[in-house]
Amino acid sequence: MRTQVGILGAGPAGLFLSLLLARRGVESVILEVRSRQAIEQTIRAGVLEQGTADLMRELGVHQRMEKLGEEHEGIEIRFRGRGRRIPLKELTGKSVTLYAQHEVIKDLVAARLQQGGEVIFSVQDVSLEGVDSDRPRILFRREPEGPLEVLECDVIAGCDGFHGPSRRAIPESVRTEYVKTYPMGWLGILTQAPPSSRELIYCNSDRGFALVSTRSPEIQRMYLQVDADDDIRNWSDDRIWEELRLRLATEEGWAPIEGPILQKSIVQMRSFVCSPMQYGRLYLAGDAAHIVPPTGAKGLNLAVSDACVLAEAIARFERHGTDDLLQRYSAICLRRVWKAERFSYFMTQMLHCFPNHSPFEREIQLAELDYVTSSVHGRGTIAENYVGLPIEWDI
Amino acid sequence: MRTQVGILGAGPAGLFLSLLLARRGVESVILEVRSRQAIEQTIRAGVLEQGTADLMRELGVHQRMEKLGEEHEGIEIRFRGRGRRIPLKELTGKSVTLYAQHEVIKDLVAARLQQGGEVIFSVQDVSLEGVDSDRPRILFRREPEGPLEVLECDVIAGCDGFHGPSRRAIPESVRTEYVKTYPMGWLGILTQAPPSSRELIYCNSDRGFALVSTRSPEIQRMYLQVDADDDIRNWSDDRIWEELRLRLATEEGWAPIEGPILQKSIVQMRSFVCSPMQYGRLYLAGDAAHIVPPTGAKGLNLAVSDACVLAEAIARFERHGTDDLLQRYSAICLRRVWKAERFSYFMTQMLHCFPNHSPFEREIQLAELDYVTSSVHGRGTIAENYVGLPIEWDI
Repeated sequence: MRTQVGILGAGPAGLFLSLLLARRGVESVILEVRSRQAIEQTIRAGVLEQGTADLMRELGVHQRMEKLGEEHEGIEIRFRGRGRRIPLKELTGKSVTLYAQHEVIKDLVAARLQQGGEVIFSVQDVSLEGVDSDRPRILFRREPEGPLEVLECDVIAGCDGFHGPSRRAIPESVRTEYVKTYPMGWLGILTQAPPSSRELIYCNSDRGFALVSTRSPEIQRMYLQVDADDDIRNWSDDRIWEELRLRLATEEGWAPIEGPILQKSIVQMRSFVCSPMQYGRLYLAGDAAHIVPPTGAKGLNLAVSDACVLAEAIARFERHGTDDLLQRYSAICLRRVWKAERFSYFMTQMLHCFPNHSPFEREIQLAELDYVTSSVHGRGTIAENYVGLPIEWDI
Repeated sequence: MRTQVGILGAGPAGLFLSLLLARRGVESVILEVRSRQAIEQTIRAGVLEQGTADLMRELGVHQRMEKLGEEHEGIEIRFRGRGRRIPLKELTGKSVTLYAQHEVIKDLVAARLQQGGEVIFSVQDVSLEGVDSDRPRILFRREPEGPLEVLECDVIAGCDGFHGPSRRAIPESVRTEYVKTYPMGWLGILTQAPPSSRELIYCNSDRGFALVSTRSPEIQRMYLQVDADDDIRNWSDDRIWEELRLRLATEEGWAPIEGPILQKSIVQMRSFVCSPMQYGRLYLAGDAAHIVPPTGAKGLNLAVSDACVLAEAIARFERHGTDDLLQRYSAICLRRVWKAERFSYFMTQMLHCFPNHSPFEREIQLAELDYVTSSVHGRGTIAENYVGLPIEWDI
């Protein structure tokens, strides 16, 4: 089997890439180790930057997003029992769209299949060969006992997430991995209740961070900072609501609207960057190359900007034979990646309780919250990062 | 002896306070443990916020500042061998004035003495009594073997610096002290050379921080980050210039203009806040209550804003018998103090090399430098803090 671009992974990076390539007349095949059902049901992020929502529209995959998603023109930052609004739209002219990642995935898979694109699910024994040659290949099986097939391509896009084989196909001597782990996790719940707030609430309290988000008029998403090694079995529904009430309480007696908890789980928090994001004819995109803690809502959106840069770079290569943009792919992506890593790190540092913080550092955190929410420029830095910084192409 | 306000310390806080009180018809006496010559010769800070320079004009003590000082409308932040300008004036409408603290001291002492104000230098055995009563007293001697004199007052202003007795007159059970020490110091030099740069250069390099400042057309001030426990005897003039050249080098081959080194010393870096800044009839101002690392150029300017708040609060008390503003003195000051502490901490974190930083944290630092210097809002946050945030009176 032969294609122009072999894409490993049907997450946001791989799917957006295949659609963007198709629009540029470049053919691709996506190989995904999970089933279609599995990728369409996994609960993940839910905040789309303006640029991501715009791209959905540009690609014509926006119908369900327009119907089910919700545009948010601001967020609230709450601390010391008071909320302060960051008016995203007023400050930047842009907004974000609340629309769950698995819904995005459904839309992209449906669109790609409808245009006749090949997405092979549930593949096994995936490996990469000859990535430093001009005939890179992906080996895989369609079924456990099936034959080992070869997908020959001009370029391989490694969109297979943090645990996929792509990144490891870059020799260790070539890549540097930057890692930061945090002494906390996020306990996330889905609850069947009406929205507690019209806009997202990012809350710093003495008891730890809490986040009030939303999914739909009937289903809400909320988060609590917990210890990194905490166990979800320690958290009864009652304890979760009690803690949400305590952390989110305001001087005016604000409380979340409670409902049955449909799902709960704890995710770890980590920052990770692999540099460079390319080697030979292999180009990493999305979680394969970088992880952010969820505090900045940047994970999905970074995958999308990688895909945008890579699609343009590959198209120039395939159509005009010029690889100048491909050569700069990693540098262009990493500049935006590091800024998003910075923002995610900053938001994490500002909003969580850190066990190793001294009383001085706690006061600095509160002064930071006071400053960034009370200064126009302070609010502007939050807003422009939250709605998404532009891709800087000239590096 | 009796006065309305007994002021301990003839630094910027105490001197500005006495002049501000005099303008409001409130009498004061300043007691200073050092000699006039000593306080007028100690080399300290040199960046006056717009508000500080304006206050000099308002008080009519601006003649030498206008002549010897220099207005700066921007600063440069240099990293990875490239400089980026923060246009202070363009972003905020304000500027800073480069004018050495000891010159300010000379101007204030001269003005205060000229208006017949009492400044008693070289006092000894200073102690405070009855600060929680309505007849607080300061005990002191004018000479080593002189009699113990008593200065009775309505209010004591503790402007006697970090090591003075005022802060310790607040019972330990009442005050909280917030402390942060940094694993580095600043080696500062005075050199006889023309200015290397029209504006200040704050430089982050892999070899550590460097700062190019100025004093006059003939004398320049430069700084190097060194280890906290480094010894000035380790630093020959040649080594200092070599290190300045290496850290400050740009792609275009920039180098500082060298000259004889007239003075060199190492200062430690520390953050410190005492809360509250008041107890009974004792009110702390300036370094007695808070220390900032020099990176934000905030120390002198914080002393000035404390003095402004305290003068107004004392005047209301002395003239109208209302102590509402005096009661809020500490809260009003601390809000601005903590924001300045935050800015100084942020600038320190962004500009220095930290021995405990991981490669991830180093990249975050570079991304921070890239972001704050390339975004209008990012530059705005630096600029508005650097020229001085307003005093927020309504707390």
